[in-house]
Amino acid sequence: MTAFPNVGKIEYEGPESRNPLAFRWYNPDEVVEGKTMKEHFRFSVVYWHTFRGTGSDPFGPGTAVRPWDDGTDSLDNAIKRVKVAFEFIEKLGAPYYAFHDRDVAPEGANLTETYKNFDAVAAALQEEQERTGIKLLWGTANMFSHPRFMHGAATSCNADAFAYAACSVKKALEITKQLGGENYVFWGGREGYQNLLNTDMKRELDHLAKFFHMAVDYAKEIGFDGQFLIEPKPKEPTKHQYDFDTANCLAFLKSYDLDKHFKMNLETNHATLAGHTMQHELEYAGQSGMLGSIDANTGDLLLGWDTDQFPTNYYLTTECMLSILKYGGLGTGGVNFDAKVRRESFDPIDLFYAHVGGMDAFAKGLKVAAAIRADGKLQQFVKDRYKSWDEGVGADIESGKHNFKTLEAYMLEKGEVSPNESGRQELLEHIFNMYL
Amino acid sequence: MTAFPNVGKIEYEGPESRNPLAFRWYNPDEVVEGKTMKEHFRFSVVYWHTFRGTGSDPFGPGTAVRPWDDGTDSLDNAIKRVKVAFEFIEKLGAPYYAFHDRDVAPEGANLTETYKNFDAVAAALQEEQERTGIKLLWGTANMFSHPRFMHGAATSCNADAFAYAACSVKKALEITKQLGGENYVFWGGREGYQNLLNTDMKRELDHLAKFFHMAVDYAKEIGFDGQFLIEPKPKEPTKHQYDFDTANCLAFLKSYDLDKHFKMNLETNHATLAGHTMQHELEYAGQSGMLGSIDANTGDLLLGWDTDQFPTNYYLTTECMLSILKYGGLGTGGVNFDAKVRRESFDPIDLFYAHVGGMDAFAKGLKVAAAIRADGKLQQFVKDRYKSWDEGVGADIESGKHNFKTLEAYMLEKGEVSPNESGRQELLEHIFNMYL
Amino acid sequence: MTAFPNVGKIEYEGPESRNPLAFRWYNPDEVVEGKTMKEHFRFSVVYWHTFRGTGSDPFGPGTAVRPWDDGTDSLDNAIKRVKVAFEFIEKLGAPYYAFHDRDVAPEGANLTETYKNFDAVAAALQEEQERTGIKLLWGTANMFSHPRFMHGAATSCNADAFAYAACSVKKALEITKQLGGENYVFWGGREGYQNLLNTDMKRELDHLAKFFHMAVDYAKEIGFDGQFLIEPKPKEPTKHQYDFDTANCLAFLKSYDLDKHFKMNLETNHATLAGHTMQHELEYAGQSGMLGSIDANTGDLLLGWDTDQFPTNYYLTTECMLSILKYGGLGTGGVNFDAKVRRESFDPIDLFYAHVGGMDAFAKGLKVAAAIRADGKLQQFVKDRYKSWDEGVGADIESGKHNFKTLEAYMLEKGEVSPNESGRQELLEHIFNMYL
Amino acid sequence: MTAFPNVGKIEYEGPESRNPLAFRWYNPDEVVEGKTMKEHFRFSVVYWHTFRGTGSDPFGPGTAVRPWDDGTDSLDNAIKRVKVAFEFIEKLGAPYYAFHDRDVAPEGANLTETYKNFDAVAAALQEEQERTGIKLLWGTANMFSHPRFMHGAATSCNADAFAYAACSVKKALEITKQLGGENYVFWGGREGYQNLLNTDMKRELDHLAKFFHMAVDYAKEIGFDGQFLIEPKPKEPTKHQYDFDTANCLAFLKSYDLDKHFKMNLETNHATLAGHTMQHELEYAGQSGMLGSIDANTGDLLLGWDTDQFPTNYYLTTECMLSILKYGGLGTGGVNFDAKVRRESFDPIDLFYAHVGGMDAFAKGLKVAAAIRADGKLQQFVKDRYKSWDEGVGADIESGKHNFKTLEAYMLEKGEVSPNESGRQELLEHIFNMYL
Repeated sequence: MTAFPNVGKIEYEGPESRNPLAFRWYNPDEVVEGKTMKEHFRFSVVYWHTFRGTGSDPFGPGTAVRPWDDGTDSLDNAIKRVKVAFEFIEKLGAPYYAFHDRDVAPEGANLTETYKNFDAVAAALQEEQERTGIKLLWGTANMFSHPRFMHGAATSCNADAFAYAACSVKKALEITKQLGGENYVFWGGREGYQNLLNTDMKRELDHLAKFFHMAVDYAKEIGFDGQFLIEPKPKEPTKHQYDFDTANCLAFLKSYDLDKHFKMNLETNHATLAGHTMQHELEYAGQSGMLGSIDANTGDLLLGWDTDQFPTNYYLTTECMLSILKYGGLGTGGVNFDAKVRRESFDPIDLFYAHVGGMDAFAKGLKVAAAIRADGKLQQFVKDRYKSWDEGVGADIESGKHNFKTLEAYMLEKGEVSPNESGRQELLEHIFNMYL
Repeated sequence: MTAFPNVGKIEYEGPESRNPLAFRWYNPDEVVEGKTMKEHFRFSVVYWHTFRGTGSDPFGPGTAVRPWDDGTDSLDNAIKRVKVAFEFIEKLGAPYYAFHDRDVAPEGANLTETYKNFDAVAAALQEEQERTGIKLLWGTANMFSHPRFMHGAATSCNADAFAYAACSVKKALEITKQLGGENYVFWGGREGYQNLLNTDMKRELDHLAKFFHMAVDYAKEIGFDGQFLIEPKPKEPTKHQYDFDTANCLAFLKSYDLDKHFKMNLETNHATLAGHTMQHELEYAGQSGMLGSIDANTGDLLLGWDTDQFPTNYYLTTECMLSILKYGGLGTGGVNFDAKVRRESFDPIDLFYAHVGGMDAFAKGLKVAAAIRADGKLQQFVKDRYKSWDEGVGADIESGKHNFKTLEAYMLEKGEVSPNESGRQELLEHIFNMYL
Repeated sequence: MTAFPNVGKIEYEGPESRNPLAFRWYNPDEVVEGKTMKEHFRFSVVYWHTFRGTGSDPFGPGTAVRPWDDGTDSLDNAIKRVKVAFEFIEKLGAPYYAFHDRDVAPEGANLTETYKNFDAVAAALQEEQERTGIKLLWGTANMFSHPRFMHGAATSCNADAFAYAACSVKKALEITKQLGGENYVFWGGREGYQNLLNTDMKRELDHLAKFFHMAVDYAKEIGFDGQFLIEPKPKEPTKHQYDFDTANCLAFLKSYDLDKHFKMNLETNHATLAGHTMQHELEYAGQSGMLGSIDANTGDLLLGWDTDQFPTNYYLTTECMLSILKYGGLGTGGVNFDAKVRRESFDPIDLFYAHVGGMDAFAKGLKVAAAIRADGKLQQFVKDRYKSWDEGVGADIESGKHNFKTLEAYMLEKGEVSPNESGRQELLEHIFNMYL
Repeated sequence: MTAFPNVGKIEYEGPESRNPLAFRWYNPDEVVEGKTMKEHFRFSVVYWHTFRGTGSDPFGPGTAVRPWDDGTDSLDNAIKRVKVAFEFIEKLGAPYYAFHDRDVAPEGANLTETYKNFDAVAAALQEEQERTGIKLLWGTANMFSHPRFMHGAATSCNADAFAYAACSVKKALEITKQLGGENYVFWGGREGYQNLLNTDMKRELDHLAKFFHMAVDYAKEIGFDGQFLIEPKPKEPTKHQYDFDTANCLAFLKSYDLDKHFKMNLETNHATLAGHTMQHELEYAGQSGMLGSIDANTGDLLLGWDTDQFPTNYYLTTECMLSILKYGGLGTGGVNFDAKVRRESFDPIDLFYAHVGGMDAFAKGLKVAAAIRADGKLQQFVKDRYKSWDEGVGADIESGKHNFKTLEAYMLEKGEVSPNESGRQELLEHIFNMYL
């Protein structure tokens, strides 16, 4: 049986290709800056949107045509779906995938049965991983969909929701370890508030910290040595999510002595909903040693919700790759397509078009970024711009030789600041285009 | 000489008054929750907008009619202006004011002369303070207007700008101490970036931290024991300001071991530009022990820039006062009207209308907040909502008696989470209205 | 059988009441400006959110507890639901309701069966209308949920979707007429585009106009003399909705010679998503003779999607009522609560809390607006502000006596414009508060 | 004398060039789709930003180094500046420029003197036009900067402001005619409102219409046959501008029987502030026959004000050129760089970098758009998508053969809509990239 009978393995055909089912830029074995493209990106397909997305939106039910799905949430169907997923990922040539517990396995009538379902599907996943060599980039638990989590999971006003969430993460950590997952991600779906009139923010944050400490302890206990990642998002579904942006997460982690155990899983559309560019979040995380992985998608900046579109903009992908290369790559992280086809793109083949477009866009971005770095003009500009800090008063400040009084003495003598130099934004944007 | 010949001291006339030059709600000596209104608010008038604002905007020059100003930036004019300012504040009945160095005193031909100007005006300010009893809520230095600071001050790529900024803050700290200022505020006007293509974020943040440490050291050295405050703002004038919101500031302060020395000066329109309500920022700062002072204004949420309008919305002022009362008041901080009259409100008398409206709105907010607290219904709702954390598994989690394994045992036995209760947002909003 | 056993008829208890299941301000028989409150508001309950809303959102399924619903979309259940709806509306004391075809009656296996279902439910609705005296404010057809309408209805690229939509509106018009509906509303759910790369905007707009003309013709044919209304919304679910705001609708209607047949049904949260205040839309529609009806809700201006919250803000409701009174009321329109309880407010009783809060907020708004108008100070200010147009050159311009040359002659002689007067925004906002 | 001693004429060096003072893509004489690039773009340099911009912003004064300016607003300086402007435009190789009256000539002590100044500068402009062959794309009058226009010009509450504005436009029309200007633009800087509490919208709109009719009449009288253009902008400086977007302008023009006399001058950053893409505005204007000219810039979609940045994004320029080519070009309009260098880009040379970058980006966009059109795949996709309208029921609807009853008969027989086809957004975005 095949779910995609008309699609073969996506091959690299090179820049001249106009075949949307071939790669123009993504050549997995091509070496860029000393690593293959495959190693740079560690592309990952998400189970939720790609194999569970229906195309529903708040104004209408699903539209997606998925012949392999019988429309039930049965265990049988779940296991059959595993085969389809791996056929897709294999044909696409992505080396990784990622999932939530509830994406892959149905909720049971009680927790015990839910565990059993998860175990059964995990076995199927493991089998397919072994058959194909596809690996698990990260696992996570869905603690926002079920009504029991309506008020949050670790930050719920209902202590039982915390307890249930503890089970979810415990089990998801175990399965992630079993499947060789390289990271474990927390996205705090309803960890936030809808309204301050009914919320005790301090108590909720204390609980969240306690929860994370338990997760860290349990991972240690079972020997899971993957990286913990937090995925910032400012709003949606709740009005305010505690993991607003990287800095908000960092403030929280530092306040509760958790920062050593976590890095960030950054997502473009989450960054923009917080009022940041994706590159801002990458740079901010990078410079604070918190860059873990990315959820590769894009949003529509004129729309105010998470559209999770596939990334095809070369400016975006180049900026991402510039920052990722600058900070030494993604480590155990990867480029995970947390993106969904539009409700109107309901054909199975649209899943291929979307992923191929996204992978190619990132490959193009890598090539442009590498060219920019090889040429060095832009980096040199930045270096030169701060040259006053490499010598004289600047160097002395950096090395701790100055205080307000000595600086005053220096400036009283000098009288005025040495002339500034143009920031040259227009030139730099123009130069950027030269590599595109 | 009088600048406002037709305005006498603004008096309290009570709720029935329709006189816009009288207070309907603000009765400085009225006791609410054990303190007078005057003590609760510590209202402060800002020098910049109120005495230096011209009504210019990016599309046209100033419109403000200010007969006492001769249109020059001379020292004489500056000293004459001090009298007008104190006449205004005195008639208004505000106990505090706040200033930047450049608001009160003109820039000289060189740093020495600039110092001299500042000293001369400080003497005039001191005289007026003594005459009237009006006090200085906080001082600060303008390190964003002069072209020398075009690339930032402490975060400039030009080390001399850092050195000059050090002098500015040193001097402003000295004058603030001399005038009995109770706080010193940092608003990082151009401490951020316009473009990542020309920016070394890590180096800039390192410099900013060094600068703050120098300020802390120098304050200690001269015995200035006022509170240091950071004023978050996400953007404008730069594309990204490092002090994006309270959490971003906190992450920075903690990363550089500065958090013990700073609190926040929160501003409504800065909060909303960051995608937060003002109450969110107050609650976030409050629960992390960082609530210092507030800049009382409001923005237009349909406009994307800092409109700095006078606050007149009772929902806003009630929410502010609810959080301020909850966290025990503003301490050495105050309610500082960082607000400006519209370009079309060019009459001197508009300054009175605006401040009276703002003070009354806050007084009404205090009364509503106090009524809500006295009644206790809303607080009790919140307390009850978290009652599952006061006993049983919740209390055990809080006291550290649980981990993932014990919680799993608990939940496996229980099977499912105890029923959630409605969040009752609509009811709570409706109840809120009952006190308005 | 009763669906709300613990709720009796909501009564007016007056301003001192703290009973959230009583009215504090809404006294249906109280006369304000010559009409009863009941006549002013013509409050209407929406079938979709209130009786079909489940509390689902893009991140989780429904939470609403609705014991009267058996969870199926059967005709039996639909008819049972009618009784519940009318029990609710009757206890609430709202004189009107509004529906889409698909809210009240299930889709059948084919169009014929769908018609039959609708007829059966319509009979039940009619019976309840007669029993209770509750009337139909407006009907409409849902042409955005079913996948057949994924690309739009009248603007679909699929001509069959247009044809099917024609049947939907034809039938909905017939039923609306049968039930005495006073208006018929078009909200163009997917009448817009997701992406310009696949869209022929001109052709789609031409089709939309053709569709409206057919509707106008058919209404005439069957003698439906209710008012046609368009409900502007700028985006969501599609990236761009053709009915962006009132002015966009007006441009369209005028371009296709349809403006005589339509008015606007304005919704607060739609206005704000378009970057307008609700009052802007009311004023714009009012001054162009297009004010028809309102969908009373509110949004969260810090969130970018349609939250459809119940309106409780007195500033909003006062502004609405000021404009509605100014333009002579809503005519055949009404104040229709197109609002939904939060996902976390899942109890049936929350439906009452929400509606009572909303009705009271509007009643308070009416009283404040009437007080403002009775006092006349704000209106007089506006009148005075334009006084230069009531005489001299202004009056001559208005009466057509001037052209560029005569105005030049006038101004060359005068030399400069007569002094402007302050816009007094701060004073006006302060005065507004005096009536609250 | 030369203002730019180190810059020669900007030459075309081709795609391989890395010289930021040469063109890589803009080759004025290169023929694309039957016209030279010069004819396609009709590039225009704006006088206001480029020769009068100082780099000031609301937080600091100007920074721009302009050695040719003596810092006064004298007539002498104005005439000297004309030479610099034409040296710049000539070296850049732009065939057009555009101005406001107040950019080029100083305001006099009274209207008569103001006229005289304008005449004197116009003579200098004419001389330079003749010397260089550079032409005037459009003229306009600044009716928003001077305090006399604080409440608007044609929509001011002060009738004298209307009269003065009439003189401004009369004179600007005369000078535009004298200089051979091909269009006359209205941008309604303060034609809108700050606050509804003090505004009579209907009266203001009536006055605006009267003003436009006077302008149309006077143009006819003096034989000015250039195109009148309105430039939509939704907000800033006022809270609401009456010319919100193209559709708002169209509604106004049609309401006052003015639509025959006007087209649109569309600006990217104005489009995005209104919540639209630039391509939306182009398509909307194009399909309604209102596409006149464009102001080529870009904004930062994460910032809420008009940043007027130079356009360098190839996606933006390609989308612009796709729509412009589709609607047959800009006619008497052009691509006018209403863009300003950043405050930190204060060097004269930055003006060249910025314009060269912008021109190249548009030239690249033209080439990509032409390639897309030559290949035809994307257009064919759109054509095919609507094929159901080219035959059968669709064609019959378009030709007026159907009504609701005949469509019902058709669909009752058919039972359900023929299957939809995927919207293929991901594929189309991917294909778009193939031409970049």
